[in-house]
Amino acid sequence: MAHIPLPPGVPGIRGLMAFRPETAKPLNELVDILLRGPHTLSRGERELIATYVSSLNGCRYCQTIHGAVAAHHLGGDEGLVLKVKSDFAEAPISDKLKALLAIAGKTAVRGKNVTESDITHARQLGATDLEIHDTVLIAAVFCMCNRYVDGLATWAPDDPAFYRERAALVAEHGYAVSAVTPSHR
Amino acid sequence: MAHIPLPPGVPGIRGLMAFRPETAKPLNELVDILLRGPHTLSRGERELIATYVSSLNGCRYCQTIHGAVAAHHLGGDEGLVLKVKSDFAEAPISDKLKALLAIAGKTAVRGKNVTESDITHARQLGATDLEIHDTVLIAAVFCMCNRYVDGLATWAPDDPAFYRERAALVAEHGYAVSAVTPSHR
Repeated sequence: MAHIPLPPGVPGIRGLMAFRPETAKPLNELVDILLRGPHTLSRGERELIATYVSSLNGCRYCQTIHGAVAAHHLGGDEGLVLKVKSDFAEAPISDKLKALLAIAGKTAVRGKNVTESDITHARQLGATDLEIHDTVLIAAVFCMCNRYVDGLATWAPDDPAFYRERAALVAEHGYAVSAVTPSHR
Repeated sequence: MAHIPLPPGVPGIRGLMAFRPETAKPLNELVDILLRGPHTLSRGERELIATYVSSLNGCRYCQTIHGAVAAHHLGGDEGLVLKVKSDFAEAPISDKLKALLAIAGKTAVRGKNVTESDITHARQLGATDLEIHDTVLIAAVFCMCNRYVDGLATWAPDDPAFYRERAALVAEHGYAVSAVTPSHR
């Protein structure tokens, strides 16, 4: 049971957003810009970064919903998402994305762990300043979301179908719009 | 030197916000609502939570600027801020705030570390649902800011006077407005 009274049947961060709509607005806006805005990294790649960080932080709700959104954008390839979470170095993704995932993973532990050589390596593989910036910020944002969701002990459904259906809705409409749609959709 | 090219002389998160104004907008809005919006916790108390978490995460820029803003709101008592960072249990603050700082500290390490008994203890000392929610979210937000600031190796000035002057500006105008003012003010 969550640590504070939340609307029944509304899982993860969405129950918290219903409890505190004032902070939900900028949170959704931030995530929409980072994960869905115009970008040289695809939506699938950015969702993989969010999923990987949430997995490192052990947040079941966030890694499952963002993993489902990533898979949706990647042609339904749930196996790829699992591979990125368990061993991204061996996953069939670009070397640039591997270098960015390494930076995201270090950011998740401690910002200062990211070294100049991590950055140089990513640049050599073609990463731009904006891609490096956004990778660090996406990792940092999910360190926030994971702690918010787990720190208040929110509910996470068990049924994988829930996340797949939700992912399709989010992929089509975005986080801000989807946050206010009924939980059963 | 920062990992990406940032405007010279603009420290900490502000250099990053100048680099990426799209994400700066919701970030500042979120922090203004949490630390400055109408609340049963004073602005000084909320800034102490932000400062304490930033101190746990070892982020020099964030703990120094938010410590300076906290001190500004607390009648200039910089000693109190230092005491909260080093040993809040013995600081001259309310027992309720001590219980909330304990929750914030656990959130900073891992969301799941916050226990039902931490929440019950805070409630027994008068903490409301909103105060508990916002404590966890403030802690989570600063886990994000600290990683963002340090993950991209931003610059933090050494001179304490810089932070005091900046704190006075932020205390008067808020984070969103102050973000776009010149760095030398």
